[in-house]
Amino acid sequence: MFRLFDKTTRMNLLFDFYQGLLTEKQKAYITLYYLDDFSLGEIAEEFEVSRQAVYDNIKRTEESLENYENKLGMLEKYTRREDLLQKLSKILENEPFFDKNIDLLLKELKEID
Amino acid sequence: MFRLFDKTTRMNLLFDFYQGLLTEKQKAYITLYYLDDFSLGEIAEEFEVSRQAVYDNIKRTEESLENYENKLGMLEKYTRREDLLQKLSKILENEPFFDKNIDLLLKELKEID
Repeated sequence: MFRLFDKTTRMNLLFDFYQGLLTEKQKAYITLYYLDDFSLGEIAEEFEVSRQAVYDNIKRTEESLENYENKLGMLEKYTRREDLLQKLSKILENEPFFDKNIDLLLKELKEID
Repeated sequence: MFRLFDKTTRMNLLFDFYQGLLTEKQKAYITLYYLDDFSLGEIAEEFEVSRQAVYDNIKRTEESLENYENKLGMLEKYTRREDLLQKLSKILENEPFFDKNIDLLLKELKEID
């Protein structure tokens, strides 16, 4: 049931769930690095700090995100739910009784992260 | 869609979701107070600290739990999912096609908090 993501995808997903617990600076650096694909040097230039400072900040943020996931498991639970909802949809969509009400409820369920 | 709980129920639910982010002392006090229904005085006696110290700790823990919920919304999303799953179950259980596979998937979905 455990799905493996490459590191960039995993960091983006963990960020989606736990960004509310990060500082503004952490959010800025990690978004530029993982979402916008900036290099450490480019972020350093942008914020007028050393490349090492950016690197240390991002490393600590990665550790925080993994630590939150370890304690709260939002991504892991989301992945398990998504798998089950996919299976359920697949069964129901092929049934003749499948209707708008069921479709709508499934869609609403999938929209909750 | 927002469900109101009395304070004790809400604190117990928030504790279920966010206890991983609390300290051992916070967990001990809040569990005795909200789950085991100890008075502040009884907890103070148990830990050989002042009643005020217990009160302050519990107040801060309550604020932390509400703060985490504000930022992560695990309880709110859980409540919305539970409502949708109830509705879906109710529709599906009354259909002639309802079978063990569907039942099992719904049960597994409900078990993920």
